[in-house]
Amino acid sequence: MSFFSEMVSTVFERRYRRGLLKDAEGRSITDLSESLLSSHGEVSGVALARSILDRYAQMDIEEKRGFFEFMAEGLEIDPDTVVSTLQAYKDAPGKSTYRAFANACEPRRQELARRLNQVPGATGQLVAMRKDLLGLMRKNPALEPVDVDFKHLFASWFNRGFLVLRPISWSTPADILEKIIAYEAVHAIDSWEDLRRRLKPSDRRCFGFFHPAMAEEPLIFVEVALTRGVPDSIQDLLADGRETIDAEDADTAVFYSISNCQTGLAGISFGNSLIKQVVSDLSHELPGLSTFVTLSPIPGLNRWRASQDGKTSPDDNPAASAARYLLDAKREDGMPFDPVARFHLGNGAMVHKVHAGADTSENGLKQSNGTMVNYLYDVQKISQNHEQFVGQKTVVASAEVRQLSATKASTKTGD
Amino acid sequence: MSFFSEMVSTVFERRYRRGLLKDAEGRSITDLSESLLSSHGEVSGVALARSILDRYAQMDIEEKRGFFEFMAEGLEIDPDTVVSTLQAYKDAPGKSTYRAFANACEPRRQELARRLNQVPGATGQLVAMRKDLLGLMRKNPALEPVDVDFKHLFASWFNRGFLVLRPISWSTPADILEKIIAYEAVHAIDSWEDLRRRLKPSDRRCFGFFHPAMAEEPLIFVEVALTRGVPDSIQDLLADGRETIDAEDADTAVFYSISNCQTGLAGISFGNSLIKQVVSDLSHELPGLSTFVTLSPIPGLNRWRASQDGKTSPDDNPAASAARYLLDAKREDGMPFDPVARFHLGNGAMVHKVHAGADTSENGLKQSNGTMVNYLYDVQKISQNHEQFVGQKTVVASAEVRQLSATKASTKTGD
Amino acid sequence: MSFFSEMVSTVFERRYRRGLLKDAEGRSITDLSESLLSSHGEVSGVALARSILDRYAQMDIEEKRGFFEFMAEGLEIDPDTVVSTLQAYKDAPGKSTYRAFANACEPRRQELARRLNQVPGATGQLVAMRKDLLGLMRKNPALEPVDVDFKHLFASWFNRGFLVLRPISWSTPADILEKIIAYEAVHAIDSWEDLRRRLKPSDRRCFGFFHPAMAEEPLIFVEVALTRGVPDSIQDLLADGRETIDAEDADTAVFYSISNCQTGLAGISFGNSLIKQVVSDLSHELPGLSTFVTLSPIPGLNRWRASQDGKTSPDDNPAASAARYLLDAKREDGMPFDPVARFHLGNGAMVHKVHAGADTSENGLKQSNGTMVNYLYDVQKISQNHEQFVGQKTVVASAEVRQLSATKASTKTGD
Amino acid sequence: MSFFSEMVSTVFERRYRRGLLKDAEGRSITDLSESLLSSHGEVSGVALARSILDRYAQMDIEEKRGFFEFMAEGLEIDPDTVVSTLQAYKDAPGKSTYRAFANACEPRRQELARRLNQVPGATGQLVAMRKDLLGLMRKNPALEPVDVDFKHLFASWFNRGFLVLRPISWSTPADILEKIIAYEAVHAIDSWEDLRRRLKPSDRRCFGFFHPAMAEEPLIFVEVALTRGVPDSIQDLLADGRETIDAEDADTAVFYSISNCQTGLAGISFGNSLIKQVVSDLSHELPGLSTFVTLSPIPGLNRWRASQDGKTSPDDNPAASAARYLLDAKREDGMPFDPVARFHLGNGAMVHKVHAGADTSENGLKQSNGTMVNYLYDVQKISQNHEQFVGQKTVVASAEVRQLSATKASTKTGD
Repeated sequence: MSFFSEMVSTVFERRYRRGLLKDAEGRSITDLSESLLSSHGEVSGVALARSILDRYAQMDIEEKRGFFEFMAEGLEIDPDTVVSTLQAYKDAPGKSTYRAFANACEPRRQELARRLNQVPGATGQLVAMRKDLLGLMRKNPALEPVDVDFKHLFASWFNRGFLVLRPISWSTPADILEKIIAYEAVHAIDSWEDLRRRLKPSDRRCFGFFHPAMAEEPLIFVEVALTRGVPDSIQDLLADGRETIDAEDADTAVFYSISNCQTGLAGISFGNSLIKQVVSDLSHELPGLSTFVTLSPIPGLNRWRASQDGKTSPDDNPAASAARYLLDAKREDGMPFDPVARFHLGNGAMVHKVHAGADTSENGLKQSNGTMVNYLYDVQKISQNHEQFVGQKTVVASAEVRQLSATKASTKTGD
Repeated sequence: MSFFSEMVSTVFERRYRRGLLKDAEGRSITDLSESLLSSHGEVSGVALARSILDRYAQMDIEEKRGFFEFMAEGLEIDPDTVVSTLQAYKDAPGKSTYRAFANACEPRRQELARRLNQVPGATGQLVAMRKDLLGLMRKNPALEPVDVDFKHLFASWFNRGFLVLRPISWSTPADILEKIIAYEAVHAIDSWEDLRRRLKPSDRRCFGFFHPAMAEEPLIFVEVALTRGVPDSIQDLLADGRETIDAEDADTAVFYSISNCQTGLAGISFGNSLIKQVVSDLSHELPGLSTFVTLSPIPGLNRWRASQDGKTSPDDNPAASAARYLLDAKREDGMPFDPVARFHLGNGAMVHKVHAGADTSENGLKQSNGTMVNYLYDVQKISQNHEQFVGQKTVVASAEVRQLSATKASTKTGD
Repeated sequence: MSFFSEMVSTVFERRYRRGLLKDAEGRSITDLSESLLSSHGEVSGVALARSILDRYAQMDIEEKRGFFEFMAEGLEIDPDTVVSTLQAYKDAPGKSTYRAFANACEPRRQELARRLNQVPGATGQLVAMRKDLLGLMRKNPALEPVDVDFKHLFASWFNRGFLVLRPISWSTPADILEKIIAYEAVHAIDSWEDLRRRLKPSDRRCFGFFHPAMAEEPLIFVEVALTRGVPDSIQDLLADGRETIDAEDADTAVFYSISNCQTGLAGISFGNSLIKQVVSDLSHELPGLSTFVTLSPIPGLNRWRASQDGKTSPDDNPAASAARYLLDAKREDGMPFDPVARFHLGNGAMVHKVHAGADTSENGLKQSNGTMVNYLYDVQKISQNHEQFVGQKTVVASAEVRQLSATKASTKTGD
Repeated sequence: MSFFSEMVSTVFERRYRRGLLKDAEGRSITDLSESLLSSHGEVSGVALARSILDRYAQMDIEEKRGFFEFMAEGLEIDPDTVVSTLQAYKDAPGKSTYRAFANACEPRRQELARRLNQVPGATGQLVAMRKDLLGLMRKNPALEPVDVDFKHLFASWFNRGFLVLRPISWSTPADILEKIIAYEAVHAIDSWEDLRRRLKPSDRRCFGFFHPAMAEEPLIFVEVALTRGVPDSIQDLLADGRETIDAEDADTAVFYSISNCQTGLAGISFGNSLIKQVVSDLSHELPGLSTFVTLSPIPGLNRWRASQDGKTSPDDNPAASAARYLLDAKREDGMPFDPVARFHLGNGAMVHKVHAGADTSENGLKQSNGTMVNYLYDVQKISQNHEQFVGQKTVVASAEVRQLSATKASTKTGD
């Protein structure tokens, strides 16, 4: 939509809302919500929905907690109705009995969210609403069922089939790029010039998933470097003044940063789909690419070591130490202790290489003494790796890493 | 996406699918569906989903019935689990107990549909699947619960907030226009030249709702004529060679045809939102417009008369007769007998004028002796009309029509 | 631009023009033209230009002739000024003397055209103006210098660097597609269904050049069939119900129709650039393509034979006869007699194969007894072929065609 | 074009160029230019043109001077041919004689530029070439005729009819926005945050002219503030933290900065068209706007005063002093001394208000002791003002400014 027509509709919107706000004046948000839920058809629904969203936007955190409590209690299922409609359905299976049962099982707060979503732009506001809820839940566990419903709804709305993959480049609109700067969670982007260095050179790429109803908000994005050979240092990879290569001369694509953008979509996983889509798209754009790896932090390493023997300073073979951690450190459920490892191994990647001195930033030194890891996405083996990981909890690793992890910890080795 | 990049991805797609089909070979669709439902993560999910959709597309109607029976029976809720999880939730309300209950209440076929929807283009295929189901349901009432779930899912996916209003004009792509020709349900478009006459002149408009995941498929569209004064004949309105006027000189916008396009979205209502959006957009584009009316058929008139006294030939005052029908002919539930009347009155419109001799087509004569009606959308009164209609089942009509209906029928009719 | 903003600007335009027309009332078009040429700056220029274009659009052919005569005589160079400014420039070369000379040499009608072109949409109107001029010139040779200037200007404006190649497909807007139907000059498109058959199947392509200032008007377009092997019949190629193949399975791209669209751009050649661009784009989209040929008519064959011995009925080896014609029939200047041959050979193509019975349409039989020819675009040899053709006027042909042409003609023909 | 297809074509381009460069190796740029000019058809033209542009891009300034000298001398007109073809045309006016004359008058360097322009992206390179030429001309006046031809060609190519007005906003691609930062010539943009403040708020607008063949390069742009009332301070207008208003509440649009972007297009005027287009577009978007003014620097004020009496420090009534300057300070040709005044008055604006202390920046104090001026664009009077200015060199000013200028310079007045 052109800037011009946007303007026109904004003008209209504003006038319209002024009218609506007057009608809604003096009514509580719960009252408005009950009206919205009972409205037949959509005639006044949009107006009511807008009033509720506007009202919510102006609330302080306490008022919001009150609204969520209303959702939790006032819009809860009625157990007796569930039981009776279930019985009726069992007795006479059919359209109306099943519909009655389905209605009884679904708390009205789900329908409320759907009706709020009629308003243009509401999807983003509902995602923001869940962000508030997640914050409040910590101290208010009674709100948890509300979050179960939000998550259920969002998993349906943000289904892979509705997402759009968009390349993010130096010719992407600035209002989206400023969000990339804000949301980058792995290696901070410290200025527009830094961003430019990650997007503009011929050997850099970035891709994100977007949802059509929140077209200006990335949901997740991945930054990619095209290189010759597998890189062993994030500082080298991002160095200002480094030499760029032609994209067609690269043999390796490196996913060096993946960031989720929307707290309100926590628990709805996009990363796996994103990586696979990007591997597929890059393979076709650049047939010279033969290797797809990450250059990943090992965020749990020192936390783990501290929990084991209180030691976090590097031993004399930090790579071997990290290899052992990646292969052997497990949670109680048998899954790897390291969250980034869980993510990539769960996607079907394998542990490929471990590099000491690969992240010399303050954060890199603190979390893993500067050690990083490449996870390899080998298209031929992704399915098999994934099955082994999910089934037998096997951490698939290269011979090199397995050998490295077998290195005696206390002896000197030259890695 | 340009035609070029489309091609590239299609080529890729094809190769990829060839591989997949081999893996899926020899496995039944129900077996594949169970695998899809039990797959952890998305690694092999998309491949499985694609196999299932491909398999379904090649099925004959009997095989499809079998698949829906599997959905109805094999992917049904387990009443005992519903009861036990409900009890557990009541005993200890919280995230995990509520989630367990919510899972127990939702038949796995809903999750199956969501997982199928991961595949690009799947949304349209699922809509087509429901079309098949609706056909099969008539003779197989046991499938009805499956449809309740489909409809529930689609109501969430095709929520107003996700729809996009797009003008349809003579510069719309031909592949969309050929669907307009195919889907027009009220006054058939008999050729591209006829379509051109409805789209190209300065006093014609057309608008449709689209869903981003089915971008080339209109969901519903409305055709609009811009006129001076309220028209009283559909043949005059659509006449080849009629005089066109400048859009800015029009004072009236006439919705002369509204067509739903997707059988698979039956029961999910778009018409009300569409009309309101179009009224709003046209008001701003053309400030000279002061009247928004329909020129609507009265499809139930002769059916009603036949059911009353067996008479369907026009009496000597056909307009009065139609006016009486519109105001007084009711179903058992007190709602108007006429389906088009129910739609517009339900939207908050009112009966404005009745015209004899307004549709001299074969169909027009057959259904209503050629009589048509204008429903008026008066922005100031829509809410109030709607409330009266939904609340007290009052058919709001103009003084003129009320007076007309009071005209003594000079021949005997049953109303 | 969205339909909406178009509307707004159209409304504005209309009001604005109403005002302008009043100002221009009563003044002759030559008077308005003189004003436009003498206006300083652009302040009133656009208004004047618009008045002139509007006035022109309403003229009958006689009035137009008058306007072109004014251009030819009233806006002609002044020979004395040319001579004197030339002398001044020779005496004192520099910016101002050169500018004076350049101004003296260029008739003011060129500046008039440039100033008319300030108006949005004027480019297309000026092209249409030249079309009128070309028609009038036949009987009015005194207008020829005006055309020299138009052509000079258009060659500059429609420079290859300003043209945009756009694929034309079944998802191209209908208003452009109806022009494709209208402009197809080789094998007529008889309906929208016929057009659909040429655009929608996976083994069909169409590309056109467009100019940004006439974005809805194709300048030239080429229709392409993707095949296995070189085709020998246009009827087979276009047959309704023929079997389509996957684009990626094709080894040959066939340019079976090239049509210029704008009479007003006669003499400005786009075909060579178009074919080369399409060969390049298709090569990259479909690496399986190894052969680029035409399937071309031989429009001059029977005309030539009639001019030689009055005979146009097929002899017993029509292919051999056509081969001899293509290789040997020359104009006085030594170039091939056949216009299509001149075009493709001039582009660097070679005569590849000749097929009897390849075009059994009425027109095909009439012009060449149904014989057609493939010209081959061999990327490796285009430059070399072109040089030989332009330099030594050599018609490069395959061994097969050369051998065929050497076949003894068993009936007497004049070649 | 998507990033993906761009990549593909870039890959192709690169390979293709590698081949070309080899062919061109060892040949001088003048030799290549002669070949390009003599090439028949376009077959090898694009390759040659590309080689020349690539060669040029790698030249140092001395080599460039050599190339321009070749253009000036080697591609000059031949006076004798001009004379003889002129005579032939006079003797026998007609197509071929006129064409011969036209060819003789136009130096071959114009045709060279047109042929170079066949290459995609060449237009921008030619504009950059002229920038070099303008730099070299100062010391090499013999090159001036080359510039006359460049300017003539560009005036035709960058005709108003080919320009596209595009709004520039915070959702414009970053690669265009970084050019806005670079090209802003009036009030420097010192960071992306500063840019954001000028683009994102609801009461700010920016518009630029673009040419389709240089789609990522603005030619000229204007920054607009929407205000209530006519502003009297640029610092207030641009203050960080200022209060923004709703666009629809504004009554005044302020053009506070207009920057030409392309040195290579010097002398080709876009500003008048731009302002008029923006006035027209804003009027329709925001009907509440009634006043269109600038807030302009007075760059010549202190220079003028220094040239008169050597005094540049503010007198006791700086506004009156500036008013007198604007109304009375003239060049020898009778036009205003101030360049910004000449621009706006030439466009048909009038001197509306003068403000002391309006630009307290270092530059503002230096050039005009901080005084600024509003020029008013009154749509009703633009034509008339323009005529008076161009015809009688009258500086139209408001009564207020005229009165101010009449204030005795030496007496205290309260402005």
